[in-house]
Amino acid sequence: MKPKLRKFIDSNIPVIENDLIFQVEKVKGPSILKKSMLYSLNAGGKKIRPLLVLATLSTFKKDTKIGIEVASVIEMIHTYSLIHDDLPSMDNDDIRRGLPTNHKVFGESVSILAGNALNTLVFGILADLKHANPQQKIKIISLLSETAGVQGMLGGQLLDIESEEKRITVSELEEIHNNKTGQLLRFSIESGAILANATPQQVSLLRNYAKHIGLAFQIKDDILDIEGSTEELGKTAGKDIISLKNTYPSLLSLEGAKDKLHEHYRLALEALAQLDEDTILLSEIANYIVMRDK
Amino acid sequence: MKPKLRKFIDSNIPVIENDLIFQVEKVKGPSILKKSMLYSLNAGGKKIRPLLVLATLSTFKKDTKIGIEVASVIEMIHTYSLIHDDLPSMDNDDIRRGLPTNHKVFGESVSILAGNALNTLVFGILADLKHANPQQKIKIISLLSETAGVQGMLGGQLLDIESEEKRITVSELEEIHNNKTGQLLRFSIESGAILANATPQQVSLLRNYAKHIGLAFQIKDDILDIEGSTEELGKTAGKDIISLKNTYPSLLSLEGAKDKLHEHYRLALEALAQLDEDTILLSEIANYIVMRDK
Repeated sequence: MKPKLRKFIDSNIPVIENDLIFQVEKVKGPSILKKSMLYSLNAGGKKIRPLLVLATLSTFKKDTKIGIEVASVIEMIHTYSLIHDDLPSMDNDDIRRGLPTNHKVFGESVSILAGNALNTLVFGILADLKHANPQQKIKIISLLSETAGVQGMLGGQLLDIESEEKRITVSELEEIHNNKTGQLLRFSIESGAILANATPQQVSLLRNYAKHIGLAFQIKDDILDIEGSTEELGKTAGKDIISLKNTYPSLLSLEGAKDKLHEHYRLALEALAQLDEDTILLSEIANYIVMRDK
Repeated sequence: MKPKLRKFIDSNIPVIENDLIFQVEKVKGPSILKKSMLYSLNAGGKKIRPLLVLATLSTFKKDTKIGIEVASVIEMIHTYSLIHDDLPSMDNDDIRRGLPTNHKVFGESVSILAGNALNTLVFGILADLKHANPQQKIKIISLLSETAGVQGMLGGQLLDIESEEKRITVSELEEIHNNKTGQLLRFSIESGAILANATPQQVSLLRNYAKHIGLAFQIKDDILDIEGSTEELGKTAGKDIISLKNTYPSLLSLEGAKDKLHEHYRLALEALAQLDEDTILLSEIANYIVMRDK
């Protein structure tokens, strides 16, 4: 990892982790439900999405602290999607980030409620943002409802389920990932841009950057599933092959997938090059996504 | 049912039903997911919650049409909670409102996503309300996140699950229902009051009314489970007894539950009597909740 990003991560991850705990702790309600929410929020993870919110603010020379709550929000949405994804009736996973999955610890019914609770809590946090005016709050709420909903993440999850039984094309696979994972990355970047009062043209360039790092992220995940070890990944390696899942390597060959990865990396950097700001941090994040080994 | 309420229901239910379809149809996304959402939204039901939004507006002499989207929102939240409640890992119900439950038709994974999709969609609808200013929108979004979340409905559902294995007291049962069902009724009334620019004192009286009709509603449900038939109820009658569930009749006897029902009815009417508006519609709704036979 490059030095500027390393420093950015080291100074911001503890702030995000503290805020995640703070946001859940301050809610009144049954302790077992809050424990289940915190269990998955505290289970590690790369925190790419919250870091993108803060890195976007930083790109526009804004104090990252005005984006902390929004950073927590997107990590909560991502976490709820993982809790539900791991359920026996969905992907039926026992291990996530090297730990037993939420329903293995708390049972299915509590896990379903904990996911729902995160999905519901985030909109209250956004309505209550300290460093945003009412118009900004409403824009961000609307953006989250769109990117995490039927038009975004949930639609992508459904397409993913439907694709399980059949061979699909690369462009169908791209549509799944643009929705399932790409839209939340778009939210991360655009919510940061809204808080920073970016212009529509700047938002459009950043949306393009988000799209390409999103696809790069997924392709890299697919490659790591083949080349990585279970220990490094914190989840079962080779699972995609065993389950005959549609992946970039399975559709394009491993070499083809690596070419595609670098093409998206190049396109992400091209989008940044058109932005008249210091984009070194965002380009280092793109680099990390492509180079990481877990 | 009394005549003013009958007329109000007959003129407003079709408007609510149309708006529910309209709100889902206009979202772009996989058709199977939208079908699953619409299946449960179109499955009938008394529509008490949306009617309360509109009846509150009507009480303050406002046009009910300014509340239609909020009415749809609360019906969507209620519907998502039923879809998830019926899942095999929750209550494991096969029949709801006389029809196969959502997961029986679409499968568990789609039902989980459809519930999530409704929970996510509603906040986008609220951010986009046509007849509310930004401050009103933010107040209503914040209220929904609270009443449908850990502090409200989801917390109540969790307490309900935890109570299944043991005998609880009447006040514990009351806490479950105040959260599990009462908070959404509170949302219905208070969101209407926010749209009508009601004073804090008026909101406080209406919150009291909401609390008592909420408890009355639940007690009446428990009584109907004993006295009603499966055909009338559209769900399996006597299920509470078979499952040894904690209910008002089981804790207070049938007569004791009926006394409690009428006490809450009286307290709901007392709250209305202190409100300096024409509350005939809200009192007829309270009357309907107590007198209904399904």
